[in-house]
Amino acid sequence: MDIDSILNRVDTDLDASLDRLFELLKIPSISTDPAYTADCRRTAEHLAADLATLGLHAEVRNTIGHPIVLAKSDGPDNRPHILFYGHYDVQPVDPLELWETDPFAPRVAERPDGSKMIVARGAADDKGQVMTFVEALRAIKAVEGELPVKVTIMLEGEEESGSPSLPGFFAEAKDELQADAVFVCDTGMWDRDTPAITMSLRGNITITMTVRAADRDLHSGYFGGAARNPNSVVAKILAGLHDDAGRVTLPGFYDGVHEVDPRTLANWDSLGMTAGEFLGTVGLSKPAGEEGRSILELVWSRPTCEVNGMSGGYSGAGFKTVIPAEAQAKVSFRLVGTQDPAKIIEAFKAYAREMVPADCSVEFETHGSGPAIQVPADWPMLKTAQKVLAEEWQTQTAMIGVGGSIPIVHDFKTVLGMDALLIGFGLEDDRVHSPNEKYDLKSFHKGIRSWARLLAAL
Amino acid sequence: MDIDSILNRVDTDLDASLDRLFELLKIPSISTDPAYTADCRRTAEHLAADLATLGLHAEVRNTIGHPIVLAKSDGPDNRPHILFYGHYDVQPVDPLELWETDPFAPRVAERPDGSKMIVARGAADDKGQVMTFVEALRAIKAVEGELPVKVTIMLEGEEESGSPSLPGFFAEAKDELQADAVFVCDTGMWDRDTPAITMSLRGNITITMTVRAADRDLHSGYFGGAARNPNSVVAKILAGLHDDAGRVTLPGFYDGVHEVDPRTLANWDSLGMTAGEFLGTVGLSKPAGEEGRSILELVWSRPTCEVNGMSGGYSGAGFKTVIPAEAQAKVSFRLVGTQDPAKIIEAFKAYAREMVPADCSVEFETHGSGPAIQVPADWPMLKTAQKVLAEEWQTQTAMIGVGGSIPIVHDFKTVLGMDALLIGFGLEDDRVHSPNEKYDLKSFHKGIRSWARLLAAL
Repeated sequence: MDIDSILNRVDTDLDASLDRLFELLKIPSISTDPAYTADCRRTAEHLAADLATLGLHAEVRNTIGHPIVLAKSDGPDNRPHILFYGHYDVQPVDPLELWETDPFAPRVAERPDGSKMIVARGAADDKGQVMTFVEALRAIKAVEGELPVKVTIMLEGEEESGSPSLPGFFAEAKDELQADAVFVCDTGMWDRDTPAITMSLRGNITITMTVRAADRDLHSGYFGGAARNPNSVVAKILAGLHDDAGRVTLPGFYDGVHEVDPRTLANWDSLGMTAGEFLGTVGLSKPAGEEGRSILELVWSRPTCEVNGMSGGYSGAGFKTVIPAEAQAKVSFRLVGTQDPAKIIEAFKAYAREMVPADCSVEFETHGSGPAIQVPADWPMLKTAQKVLAEEWQTQTAMIGVGGSIPIVHDFKTVLGMDALLIGFGLEDDRVHSPNEKYDLKSFHKGIRSWARLLAAL
Repeated sequence: MDIDSILNRVDTDLDASLDRLFELLKIPSISTDPAYTADCRRTAEHLAADLATLGLHAEVRNTIGHPIVLAKSDGPDNRPHILFYGHYDVQPVDPLELWETDPFAPRVAERPDGSKMIVARGAADDKGQVMTFVEALRAIKAVEGELPVKVTIMLEGEEESGSPSLPGFFAEAKDELQADAVFVCDTGMWDRDTPAITMSLRGNITITMTVRAADRDLHSGYFGGAARNPNSVVAKILAGLHDDAGRVTLPGFYDGVHEVDPRTLANWDSLGMTAGEFLGTVGLSKPAGEEGRSILELVWSRPTCEVNGMSGGYSGAGFKTVIPAEAQAKVSFRLVGTQDPAKIIEAFKAYAREMVPADCSVEFETHGSGPAIQVPADWPMLKTAQKVLAEEWQTQTAMIGVGGSIPIVHDFKTVLGMDALLIGFGLEDDRVHSPNEKYDLKSFHKGIRSWARLLAAL
């Protein structure tokens, strides 16, 4: 394959690639909010139409939730068959008032140093990353007239909302998804100049807990000191989840959590990341988790419990002296090693139930969960990927862990027996899930080139 | 004065009285929300115009916040001069979805037993109660051709939002407010059939606390276990405010809290109110406050700390794995005896500051505060009021405490040297500050009659 011509094509087609990404970013595909259901379908249809232009047999598959885009090529049989996975849904945009511009009006912003970034909800997570792979395929097809490998592309619309439709879809489409390897583009670089392959992902659990007391909101003057206050009950439950040393207190929580082997730890230490540097980018300085661990250990190899949302009573301007009828918390756990999500969910529920006093009830809604992932270090695919990334970025490829979760990667392994190659071009400062999310134009451009090199090398 | 004719006039004019109350209830005078500023003024103007029809010199006085209605009569000089105080502002209506009908579209609803109630925000707190006094004056004026006593009516528009304008107004209007006694109609009956005079009110403090950590919202996968989570910090602060026995833990909090004298306690016990009965009306059964105290002791004579609002991170449908940049709590205290609001505010701030870890800041906004009130048991006005209430309701008048706060009653005593006669016709089940607030039609009707009797007896 003529890799120079392919890379040249990527470069000259970049503006058109960007236009295509913008069309995708304009659709507000917020999967967790039912108000955007139609937009999610519109995004899937848009992607399927685009993939069809590459000669893929692209379909929008209905599920019990948001549809899944499934596109298949014929491709040469003498090369590996790749399943590419990404997601087209995005996180909610609140607080909207903190966005400098409309989250769904994508734009290219220029920094003082001349470097550029794509600003929009989903720019980095995951629409921009998905399009690096799609545009790489497009460039190869344009130059070579055909796709380099047999490829199946699966784009789901529920990654940000617990993927409730996936079990059903896997059961139904298991044979169609079978390939030699899964490629996923939903992770990050080590730093602005250093590409990375992600070797581990933390698992996760997300739960909404609701505590109810009186059958109505009460006046805190008339009833204060007599009626149970669900806000205080929720606060006590949340406050008891960590001990003073930052460890999670649930019984059995650390079952399956293993110390990182010394070689990997030394490898991480050699990356030279300090807590001050890691936290400094977001205005913090001191690690808040378990004491006595390095910052990379904390975010890559240690499990956590975080309160992602807390609400009860009046939170508007001014004051309202109310004892609310109910209060709520959204709690998530990040898992490592062989921690068992089901056991931890039960431990959390048992703990919360025990903390709930007379006259109160507690109810749970789990939104999705998945255990941690470890890519086998001796997988041959890793060597090829390491090499082409190093060529594109002109520096060694970092083998890293990631604190986030991509539960489907676990399903690919357990249900389909496939390992996943986790390559992505996100940066620490991408403001993923936050206002003013961005994706560096360099990430987008060299991301496309990186996939083109890898696809050509297979 | 011809009391029978006056009471007859009240009865025959009831429908018109109700129409006038409805006009007042239709205006959404939510004082704590700036969106309703114009409505607050409109309410004041409406009331001033109505009071002018009684021959009062009625004015809408501007303040630094919402205006105050001040109306004065000439009246006979040989009788006591009464200052009537009430408030025309109401609480916010959220959660709006729990209202059966528009909170500002007042209606009369009939119970299966044929009894009726007025449903609207402000029906009981305080528009309905204010109008019992106004309609009593109107009936006397209609029958006698003149008002029974010299009366000054002061209606404020910030009672539900900490009365920020009151200090300035008191300084300005001190001489105009001077009277022989203050009458306030913002309290309740003992039960559906038994009138009450309130002898004590708890004081209060309201504070909004905001804890900030990172300079943006963070992804709990990438940063979880490393970055400080303000939700957890707020939860720990709130959870530490009470010990296991329900006592407030702030140092010095119980300074100035005295045990109720045995005679009053015996009097309360004789009312026969059980915890089950008190809490049963709102779906609860067990007192949540300090252990080893009767239910009336808890709500009338013991101080409290309540979390009235708690918010941070994502609280919408579904889930968002965010570590928020900030979290907030709205905390109030109810005070008794000679507890000093200023000292308790400082103790709370000091406690919270101590609980805030590295990388976090905490900020406070106080919305208003006032100490507790005790009416002198030997005040002659009490005897007269006890007698006429007993005549109207055909049963003994209960001398009670109230867990709520009316800070201005303290100012009337300390700034103007006046004691307050606290009579009201609210019921436990009025859903004050809650969705579907109501005021029994019987409360409204016999409330007007009760004031008419008292005014005639002075």
